[in-house]
Amino acid sequence: MGDERRFRSLADGCVASPAGFSAGAVYAGIKTPGSDKLDLAILASDRLAAAAGVFTRNSFAAAPVLLCRQRIESGRARAVIVNAGNANACTGERGLADAREMADLAARKLGIPADEVLVASTGVIGVAMPMDLVRSGVSAIELSPDGGHQMARAIITTDTRPKEAGVELELGGKVARIGGIAKGAGMIHPNMATMLAFVTTDASVDGDILGSALHEAAADSFNMISIDGDTSTNDTLILLANGAAGNATVRGGEDAAKFMAALAHVCAELARAIVSDGEGATRLIRVDVVGARSDQDARAAARAVVRSNLVKAAVYGGDPNWGRVLCAIGYSGAQVDPAVVDLAVGDVPLVRAGSPVESGREAAGDLMKQSEVRFVANLNLGQAQATAWGCDLTEAYVVENSAYTT
Amino acid sequence: MGDERRFRSLADGCVASPAGFSAGAVYAGIKTPGSDKLDLAILASDRLAAAAGVFTRNSFAAAPVLLCRQRIESGRARAVIVNAGNANACTGERGLADAREMADLAARKLGIPADEVLVASTGVIGVAMPMDLVRSGVSAIELSPDGGHQMARAIITTDTRPKEAGVELELGGKVARIGGIAKGAGMIHPNMATMLAFVTTDASVDGDILGSALHEAAADSFNMISIDGDTSTNDTLILLANGAAGNATVRGGEDAAKFMAALAHVCAELARAIVSDGEGATRLIRVDVVGARSDQDARAAARAVVRSNLVKAAVYGGDPNWGRVLCAIGYSGAQVDPAVVDLAVGDVPLVRAGSPVESGREAAGDLMKQSEVRFVANLNLGQAQATAWGCDLTEAYVVENSAYTT
Repeated sequence: MGDERRFRSLADGCVASPAGFSAGAVYAGIKTPGSDKLDLAILASDRLAAAAGVFTRNSFAAAPVLLCRQRIESGRARAVIVNAGNANACTGERGLADAREMADLAARKLGIPADEVLVASTGVIGVAMPMDLVRSGVSAIELSPDGGHQMARAIITTDTRPKEAGVELELGGKVARIGGIAKGAGMIHPNMATMLAFVTTDASVDGDILGSALHEAAADSFNMISIDGDTSTNDTLILLANGAAGNATVRGGEDAAKFMAALAHVCAELARAIVSDGEGATRLIRVDVVGARSDQDARAAARAVVRSNLVKAAVYGGDPNWGRVLCAIGYSGAQVDPAVVDLAVGDVPLVRAGSPVESGREAAGDLMKQSEVRFVANLNLGQAQATAWGCDLTEAYVVENSAYTT
Repeated sequence: MGDERRFRSLADGCVASPAGFSAGAVYAGIKTPGSDKLDLAILASDRLAAAAGVFTRNSFAAAPVLLCRQRIESGRARAVIVNAGNANACTGERGLADAREMADLAARKLGIPADEVLVASTGVIGVAMPMDLVRSGVSAIELSPDGGHQMARAIITTDTRPKEAGVELELGGKVARIGGIAKGAGMIHPNMATMLAFVTTDASVDGDILGSALHEAAADSFNMISIDGDTSTNDTLILLANGAAGNATVRGGEDAAKFMAALAHVCAELARAIVSDGEGATRLIRVDVVGARSDQDARAAARAVVRSNLVKAAVYGGDPNWGRVLCAIGYSGAQVDPAVVDLAVGDVPLVRAGSPVESGREAAGDLMKQSEVRFVANLNLGQAQATAWGCDLTEAYVVENSAYTT
């Protein structure tokens, strides 16, 4: 509660809400021809910003990811160009050249050095980027402080709605904002799930603080969600902090804690929005693991549950098959003593000290049919805890992902 | 080819095919009442046998697994009692007592010491074993050398057919047999996937050789299959070698190699039978990873592909979405250099040295619609290789596993 009072949500918060940022998007024709959906966007700061990023660990990282990893090392960036409809992954040398040209095009448009531009892509794998479409698209983009919502729409693929979030907080007597957008793990015609998220702030934040804040926020949000367990080639999370709020640069202490809490909130909002819009999903699954021996154990256990196909199918059916939840915790690698584990769905106990609580089964059945189903597992071995979010597994997921694409 | 010529498949091979073994099964009423399906079985050797086992690594290992782990340490056993319909998992102290009593009942019936009896269970989790049904069931079982087929039927749950295999080979001038049965990862009412497999041989094999042969065979078979990635609380693989063939005890050398190859064949047959009968499955997926830096890398990469929901859904749709295959290899943890990877479906190249082979896409589409779809990934980094088997992900899987069970 303490943290929550130190920032307030912006009703219309988005990636261009913080001062000094603008964005814009067009339909360049990269998504399915004729879909007339926005598919190419640019986000820009009116001044150089401190930058941090978290990228996929997949060995087949896409060309734009390889480029971003290099450029983010400077700790500075000023713009991002992003497209949906083509992942520019498994595209070899040509792909790298195309990613570089995308940055060049944006840099020329904005009148800034090319190495201050980051690039992100999502969509079909193994197909060369249609650079002619990108070239004409870039020239048609118009950036404005209201353009964040357009950009949010341009980066989505099979998402049914854009994902946006924003907060306002005070830092050293100045009002600062944090805003973000994300796209989820949807994957029909663009045949790869990809998580893209772009977060901006007008706070001035020291580069080291910025990087650790982003990694910490990601660990508790984007790294704690699962649609289907497949880590994409293009996953990208970028944070830009341009200092336009005029606060004294955050270098630690109370302001750093406030900033981190607010950033964590924005990331968590975006992450939850991603799973509740998972392909074919009808219910959100929340798993709280408490009493774990370590943070790592708590995260591993919570993630194993939201990744389990059996748990996901049971939740879809509204079936209180709690054995599947314990089973997933049991193979997660987390340290567990079966004799002391408690498990509840919502506030209804299902297992106490490793033994079934028979009375809970009927009430559990009702809770399993809510739009959000929450499991709470207490390992009773320590103080660490973690929360993971996922969604149910439905026929619609299978149908969407088996669609013939060639 | 060399190995294959040194044993021959038995058309009717089963767990009681080797000399000195008998089996029998009854419907005790543990499966859904009225289903009149066999659900309780005993396998026995007419003499004490060398024994080895591989068990689930799930922390919530079921009571019969805990009991087996203790008893198998002696390296000796003479019988196995197994039931389907109740997993005896998450059942606390009561569950352990019940598992022990199951062994006692079988021992008394056979007139042998109780600690020579192993126990296995599969079925619903968190429900006490109906011991009255087990007691009357055990007394009704009639064992015979032909009873292996009955036992194969008694251990299945949502499998659509029993899984059996057997081979004959020569060891030191004597004819020896290896036979086995398995049940697959099916899970509707019994709400947990469980792999059970029982393999017997009349060969006389040194205990150390037996244990390492079983672990090696399991590593390339049962540990290389995935229906949905959920490791159950009850997974059990038991091997009994009773020496009735009269061969000089296998202690190494040529005979050990022959025995290992034959055992590996039986385990691989059973493992393939499990995945081709996966819930809702319409196609078998085979993934060969070659050119890996290490065996561990090859196995990890192959397993990641057969576990990927995206790959499984694409195969269901007959969709040559090869990006999903590379993506799964990319997050498997195996060492990969994207620039040198080759990928093919069947013998049609899709990716060569990390770049798409456009010509392959149409031919690949046809191969993706066969009953067995085979991907071959060459990491081109070393000599290690591994093969994994899986099945496609279908609406039927989701429907079966979301069925309301309470």
